[in-house]
Amino acid sequence: QSLKIGLIPADGIGKEVIPAARRVLEAIGSDIPKPEFVPLLAGWEVFVRSGTALPEETVEALRECDGALFGAVSSPSRRVTGYSSPIVALRKELDLYANVRPVISVAANPEEKPAVDLVVVRENTECLYVKQEQLVPTENGKEARATRLITERASRRIGKMAFEIALGRPRKVWLPSSLPRIIVVEILNLFARKIQQVTIIHKSNVLSVTDGLFRETIRQVPADANGRYDSVKLEEQIVDSAVYRLFREPQIYDVMVAPNLYGDIISDAAAALVGSLGLVPSVNAGDKFIMGEPVHGSAPDIEGKGIANPIAAIRSAALMIRHMGYTNGADRIDRAVDQVVREGQVLTPDLGGKSSTDDVLNAVLKKL
Amino acid sequence: QSLKIGLIPADGIGKEVIPAARRVLEAIGSDIPKPEFVPLLAGWEVFVRSGTALPEETVEALRECDGALFGAVSSPSRRVTGYSSPIVALRKELDLYANVRPVISVAANPEEKPAVDLVVVRENTECLYVKQEQLVPTENGKEARATRLITERASRRIGKMAFEIALGRPRKVWLPSSLPRIIVVEILNLFARKIQQVTIIHKSNVLSVTDGLFRETIRQVPADANGRYDSVKLEEQIVDSAVYRLFREPQIYDVMVAPNLYGDIISDAAAALVGSLGLVPSVNAGDKFIMGEPVHGSAPDIEGKGIANPIAAIRSAALMIRHMGYTNGADRIDRAVDQVVREGQVLTPDLGGKSSTDDVLNAVLKKL
Ligand SMILES: CC(C)[C@H](C(=O)O)[C@@H](O)C(=O)O
Ligand SMILES: CC(C)[C@H](C(=O)O)[C@@H](O)C(=O)O
Repeated sequence: QSLKIGLIPADGIGKEVIPAARRVLEAIGSDIPKPEFVPLLAGWEVFVRSGTALPEETVEALRECDGALFGAVSSPSRRVTGYSSPIVALRKELDLYANVRPVISVAANPEEKPAVDLVVVRENTECLYVKQEQLVPTENGKEARATRLITERASRRIGKMAFEIALGRPRKVWLPSSLPRIIVVEILNLFARKIQQVTIIHKSNVLSVTDGLFRETIRQVPADANGRYDSVKLEEQIVDSAVYRLFREPQIYDVMVAPNLYGDIISDAAAALVGSLGLVPSVNAGDKFIMGEPVHGSAPDIEGKGIANPIAAIRSAALMIRHMGYTNGADRIDRAVDQVVREGQVLTPDLGGKSSTDDVLNAVLKKL
Repeated sequence: QSLKIGLIPADGIGKEVIPAARRVLEAIGSDIPKPEFVPLLAGWEVFVRSGTALPEETVEALRECDGALFGAVSSPSRRVTGYSSPIVALRKELDLYANVRPVISVAANPEEKPAVDLVVVRENTECLYVKQEQLVPTENGKEARATRLITERASRRIGKMAFEIALGRPRKVWLPSSLPRIIVVEILNLFARKIQQVTIIHKSNVLSVTDGLFRETIRQVPADANGRYDSVKLEEQIVDSAVYRLFREPQIYDVMVAPNLYGDIISDAAAALVGSLGLVPSVNAGDKFIMGEPVHGSAPDIEGKGIANPIAAIRSAALMIRHMGYTNGADRIDRAVDQVVREGQVLTPDLGGKSSTDDVLNAVLKKL
């Protein structure tokens, strides 16, 4: 048995960090089935060469894979007819409806609670990303309209995903398992700084219909779950004040579930809290397919210099295999990365270090 | 001659901070024409009593005023038929097309450059705030759609406003006026940490038509201005990475111009950098009318306790009269507030202090 993984470095530093993630997956041995890698094309450079940013063969090949790793895409600096972001298209084509972005700082001591420890669960297929836009010339100049789509179906499945992720997150306090569940939950509520919690992010004070639907649908998820999510507290927060509070008191969040665009912004905001976008992984998850993707972009300013931080890509590989069920392998990678970050000896410039992509990769490989 | 100012405290702490702002305007004497205040109703509480959140009389009365101060509105925790945010409606009714939000930290020493010193110029009438939404039941559940409107006309006028504000901002370096202009600008670019600059915030890598129109229209503004904006550097930034960079290196921004929703989120994000939302003022500006409004909300958690920070409302009053041309009065208020913040003796709990709204008001009045 082997694990077939599509590799789509795409543009810029994607071509530097995805090979690093590949090396790590090759190195973890029997913790996963032997990986077989399928190199695939997408992105701005392919568009320039061939007129399409997402070749049909790439999508077809991915359908034969167990998972994939995606790098990053560059965007043209002006509107270019026919060009459209391949990552947005891929998420839709493969119905990768959840974008899961854990943002976790590395505590000085492995026994300590990290200062930031949250997961952004971003709806990945609709909202303004349906890209239904029109331009109309009028007497007073041009007018452009875009459609923002929110469906009950997509809101429900992303809501369920958020609750499942909350259930799977480690509790932050010791659980005396002999006490009845309900008392335990009460005690947790009293003493724990944080328990399992889902916070719905919305702007229903303005978008009462679309964000209203998102919010009401997710509020309904625990009610329909036969008590499965009883241990998970449900909160909500308006998007603007959510960003404000994220910076002031990130510890109030556990799992944040958001429509596509808010999730995009919030995950970048959260990344700023842990020191660098170069540390933050994500997976694009569907029911049948999973694609790892670092949260950072193609970073044209440092492209080709060999100093891109490979950690976000490596952690994305770990997150991908974790979602596939290979917990041991994922834990090993995460522990190795955490050690390298904690020691602080081998870091790329985004983290104030002087090391190269390869240095960091080798440091991680040594700790595996 | 008198200055007729509508006062709309609306809900929650709006009723505590707007009276404080009024007291300050009353106290600055001959720097403005004698103010005459017109108390007006709007908000959730009025809605509950009367069925409308923005009574017709309020809008009519405002049309007779020279300016206004708006407090904050509470939102229902569930969708309520017929309720719609009065502040959004007012901005549209009075065509207050620009929401100007200076976010400036107070340096320890008045001669020092503040660590954060930027202005968010938010388009205030369109984007998703047009509130055109539909809910459609389908076989697979409900589907909701909202329209996002971006027009060339609104983008151009907000762009011009942003460039004008950039021109009016103090340069950060001493300008040897005998050197030819172009060399000066070159030297500034080399040595100044920051010169006059407008950064367009958009997401045209996804919304190529709507945000594409916003971006292209604003890029065109300096070209059509006969050299008036030649000293202003034009930059742009994708909204998600703009929020990331705002937290990591706020000094790269001067004036940020954004469509409505991004502007909403970005100004809250920026507020987190200066210590408290309770410090950040705004004006809703049209060509004929100007309305001050603290950026914070109605804060139901501290309502009625007398501990709301009045500074955002007081600064909003200063910003309002500044936009009316009463620079001296505005400067006096801002200096008084800065002194109180700098001294750090009389602060409300949001800033770590123990003082009340009235204490802070009195401290400001004493420094005037
Ligand atoms: C590149 C862009 C289309 C993309 C997005 O907005 O989803 C990126 O910002 C991300 O977060 O993966
Ligand atoms: C209360 C709400 C409708 C409003 C907005 O989104 O504009 C507020 O957040 C603001 O920024 O003034």
